[in-house]
Amino acid sequence: MPRLLHIDSSADIEHSRSRAITRTFADEWRSHGADFTVTYRDLHRVAIPHLPDAALHWPPRLRPQGATPPAEAEALQQELILELVSADVLLVGAPMYNYSLPSALKAWIDYVHVPGVTAPFDVETQPLAGRPAVIVTSRGASYEEGSPTAGWDHAVPVLELILGNALGMSTTVIATSLTLADSVPALADRLDQSRAELAQAHREAAAKARRLAL
Amino acid sequence: MPRLLHIDSSADIEHSRSRAITRTFADEWRSHGADFTVTYRDLHRVAIPHLPDAALHWPPRLRPQGATPPAEAEALQQELILELVSADVLLVGAPMYNYSLPSALKAWIDYVHVPGVTAPFDVETQPLAGRPAVIVTSRGASYEEGSPTAGWDHAVPVLELILGNALGMSTTVIATSLTLADSVPALADRLDQSRAELAQAHREAAAKARRLAL
Repeated sequence: MPRLLHIDSSADIEHSRSRAITRTFADEWRSHGADFTVTYRDLHRVAIPHLPDAALHWPPRLRPQGATPPAEAEALQQELILELVSADVLLVGAPMYNYSLPSALKAWIDYVHVPGVTAPFDVETQPLAGRPAVIVTSRGASYEEGSPTAGWDHAVPVLELILGNALGMSTTVIATSLTLADSVPALADRLDQSRAELAQAHREAAAKARRLAL
Repeated sequence: MPRLLHIDSSADIEHSRSRAITRTFADEWRSHGADFTVTYRDLHRVAIPHLPDAALHWPPRLRPQGATPPAEAEALQQELILELVSADVLLVGAPMYNYSLPSALKAWIDYVHVPGVTAPFDVETQPLAGRPAVIVTSRGASYEEGSPTAGWDHAVPVLELILGNALGMSTTVIATSLTLADSVPALADRLDQSRAELAQAHREAAAKARRLAL
């Protein structure tokens, strides 16, 4: 039974492009039959707290002596990791906020990346190795190669490092930029590009879901 | 009356190097006299919630029509911004977690960076222009130029972009690396470098505080 874990993190319920594009992906996934299940986690509507103890970056055997992270945080961490490793495909809506991830999504990353559990460390464990992770990112402005703001996106690279490098997942990025072109005067002349990128992102999302569902 | 705003965000109360180094800075600052005041905000012990509404990225006049962010979040945002613009010097403890900022610190950034209020947008407002921001970062491994992990630090660049570029502050970075050298076997042969960097960071913090207090 092919299981999709669908995560959203945008703090904009109504107008979010990352939410709209992940929905396109999930709808396509579901359309392949009743056994194409979706677990949905909305990190904005049901927030997870900031990591309450740095010891949770590590499994119990690797924590500093005397570390006693709160039991409810350990339980949440186990729940989030179990949910992740139970997925055949991961879909993450990751809008760029202030050149980085929304704090809600960063908190999730801090819970699920645990060397020696979800990533290799003292043991060669990498339970998600090779599984697809589809990252849907949306950015207010444009960060094209060669432009003055190239390299200012510090959101997607973090997901690539954690989901790709550390967890060994096979990452795909679907990006839409210039989301502010319809509201920020300085970007108004790029409205056509903004709309074209959005339409393209929806097409890519549907196509990717179709390929992964086959 | 020279006012320091001292922010910590490490989720490790006992062993944190970023906390230790910011303390060195703040102690030196205080030593210059009773009028060298310190406002302390510990984003770990007293967490601020993830931004509950993306509309808070903007001041009321620039929000989407019909936006009604929660009143308590608006009040918190005003409190955080007022605290920041009241400071003559900003000191931020920013450990790198998973190649990015702790979510607690990212949440703070999302509250205080408001184009048109703390950064120029439709009006040329930049109330913190030219004021010093001292960023104290600590990183478990090493991210030196020319090493395979160069460019993996997506924490400091975000602070530089927001505090430096957007808010116009004069940023200084004090970094300590290889903080895991005393616990991770693969880094054990770099323990000397780790200790040397830590000692150097404390010296830099004290010296910087001294210069700014003069």
